[in-house]
Amino acid sequence: MRKLTKQSIEDIAIGAAILGTGGGGDPYIGKLMALSAIEEYGPITLLDPEEISDEDLVVPSAMMGAPTVLVEKIPSGEEVFKSFSALESYLGKEVKATMPIEAGGVNSMMPLALAAKLGLPVIDADGMGRAFPELQMVTFSIYDVSATPMVLADEKGNSVLFNTIDNKWTEDLARGATITMGGSTMVAIYPMDGAQVKEGGIKNIVTFTEEIGKALRTAKEQGANPIKSLSEVMNGHVVFTGKIVDINRRTEGGFARGTAILEGIDDFQGNSASLDFQNEHLVCRVNEKVAVSVPDLITVHDAETGYPITTEGMRYGQRILVMGSPCTEKWRSEKGLSLVGPAYFGYEDVEFIPVEDRIKQLKGGN
Amino acid sequence: MRKLTKQSIEDIAIGAAILGTGGGGDPYIGKLMALSAIEEYGPITLLDPEEISDEDLVVPSAMMGAPTVLVEKIPSGEEVFKSFSALESYLGKEVKATMPIEAGGVNSMMPLALAAKLGLPVIDADGMGRAFPELQMVTFSIYDVSATPMVLADEKGNSVLFNTIDNKWTEDLARGATITMGGSTMVAIYPMDGAQVKEGGIKNIVTFTEEIGKALRTAKEQGANPIKSLSEVMNGHVVFTGKIVDINRRTEGGFARGTAILEGIDDFQGNSASLDFQNEHLVCRVNEKVAVSVPDLITVHDAETGYPITTEGMRYGQRILVMGSPCTEKWRSEKGLSLVGPAYFGYEDVEFIPVEDRIKQLKGGN
Repeated sequence: MRKLTKQSIEDIAIGAAILGTGGGGDPYIGKLMALSAIEEYGPITLLDPEEISDEDLVVPSAMMGAPTVLVEKIPSGEEVFKSFSALESYLGKEVKATMPIEAGGVNSMMPLALAAKLGLPVIDADGMGRAFPELQMVTFSIYDVSATPMVLADEKGNSVLFNTIDNKWTEDLARGATITMGGSTMVAIYPMDGAQVKEGGIKNIVTFTEEIGKALRTAKEQGANPIKSLSEVMNGHVVFTGKIVDINRRTEGGFARGTAILEGIDDFQGNSASLDFQNEHLVCRVNEKVAVSVPDLITVHDAETGYPITTEGMRYGQRILVMGSPCTEKWRSEKGLSLVGPAYFGYEDVEFIPVEDRIKQLKGGN
Repeated sequence: MRKLTKQSIEDIAIGAAILGTGGGGDPYIGKLMALSAIEEYGPITLLDPEEISDEDLVVPSAMMGAPTVLVEKIPSGEEVFKSFSALESYLGKEVKATMPIEAGGVNSMMPLALAAKLGLPVIDADGMGRAFPELQMVTFSIYDVSATPMVLADEKGNSVLFNTIDNKWTEDLARGATITMGGSTMVAIYPMDGAQVKEGGIKNIVTFTEEIGKALRTAKEQGANPIKSLSEVMNGHVVFTGKIVDINRRTEGGFARGTAILEGIDDFQGNSASLDFQNEHLVCRVNEKVAVSVPDLITVHDAETGYPITTEGMRYGQRILVMGSPCTEKWRSEKGLSLVGPAYFGYEDVEFIPVEDRIKQLKGGN
């Protein structure tokens, strides 16, 4: 158990933007909410998963919807409050802690702000270890944890409680309700007991996120190489550095899809690369060969500062660095890959090969 | 209190098809469900609204969705069973009776089948007195009764509990969920106490529906004029008899919209008429002058037998009779008209004038 300070929140926000792998929503608004909640209610308690009892009810919380809408439709805070009490009365049990379900992007922050407000501890775990676009894409799905009973609420006072036969149905129904409610909602989801969190969760992800942010901040303060610091903390590989020479975007099924084309610079002069995204980066190809694919992390950074660039922030002419980092081992299992592997995202022809092996192959091929 | 026999069900089904005013879904499947439930569980108890206590919890039940999907997606029966118990545990109160929320079309029958199965009585009242396309279009909305908490369930085992700030939000969210769930669902909606049913309900509508069906059956048995019998029981006016010379249909926003053009026959030789519909008939014009509009009932009948023809059943060349009948006085109030008047359906230029007055005007004009 430890307390999260304002500095922790600042570092987690940077780390979460990187784990957003291009999407997940800018943690900025969430950060402001968390900081102001700490200001008002005091520091947030972060619990190691081993510190909760197997029987305790834990309810992750998150924002659902399009990151772009979020900015114009700030949650009132009341909606999650109501969602938690609705779940408590439905389950007939008190909520003992909350946690992020998605460590990447804005959803790193929502549970922190909420925890401060409700006086609940936050468990140092999540279900993605990064950002993903759909709610069934959590490691808990591998362990057959149900997303429901789940409560979804908007800032106007509408709320919906779902009970579904599987987590894909939850995704479809909750996505529809979110669109009807104006594009973003707050959810209390995957109610679990402590034992399920310990078995299915990605442990110490909040601390890991904080370390990423801290690495970048420290490098900046000390004038060290930020990319080197990042590579070390994330076990990351520099996959490409290049200039964006083309980028196209389209909105499809509520997702921001597109492709960016890169022309190599520095060590990659004379080479080309492409980045396919659907909210998050899905596949990075170097000279038309796959170099990294989901569920491994593809992160895009300012080539100088190492700071993350979202898919929305990418612009023609930018000089960027692409890093590939290993995802949790849980995602690399057969069941994990069926949920978030390249094939699920429509890349039937892309076999998942761990980034560290791909990089060896690519280097071996030179 | 009286018992509904199989003959009652047959008569109610015919009456409900007429009160469907062209839409509401064919009561046929519902009738089979109700008949088989009576076969298995015995006759259904119909209670006069005055017979329930003011404190008793009454939960209307219905099918939601496109009538055309319904035929291919027959409910398992379990879904409403589960919905009722979900509502009971949410409200902490036992359901004492069910009732139709929509007397017209298939929703006349769903509560009957359910009541037999659950051993509950049915209250002789509804909230429409006819069929309407959206769930907030009930007389209970005039009295500020909330549609929620409402439970919606599909035949697969998914269920959703809504709590909304108004009944239009319920409509929007439930419609979306119904579409996601494949186009038709079962709902337990507008939970009320007995006092609310007595204040806001359209009383004795089940009995009225049965009388309409009985009038048509008796006329047929006795070789009497079916149209005369119908006019008497419904206070209806023959607005037009004609041949369908043109009909167009389109699906818009999940609704079947369209217009039929009629050329007068018999007494209406040399005249023309049109029928606009959105699931149900909305406006009938004779010689381009409005003759009947929502919320009054526009019903289309086979010119010979008096049997009802749905908007889907209308075909080029058919000889039909259009009848206009008064709706409940509740709908003719200012608040009633704001919910279901011509303007709500997009006819900003059509003033609601009661059918009996329109007919006088039209006759005076000859």
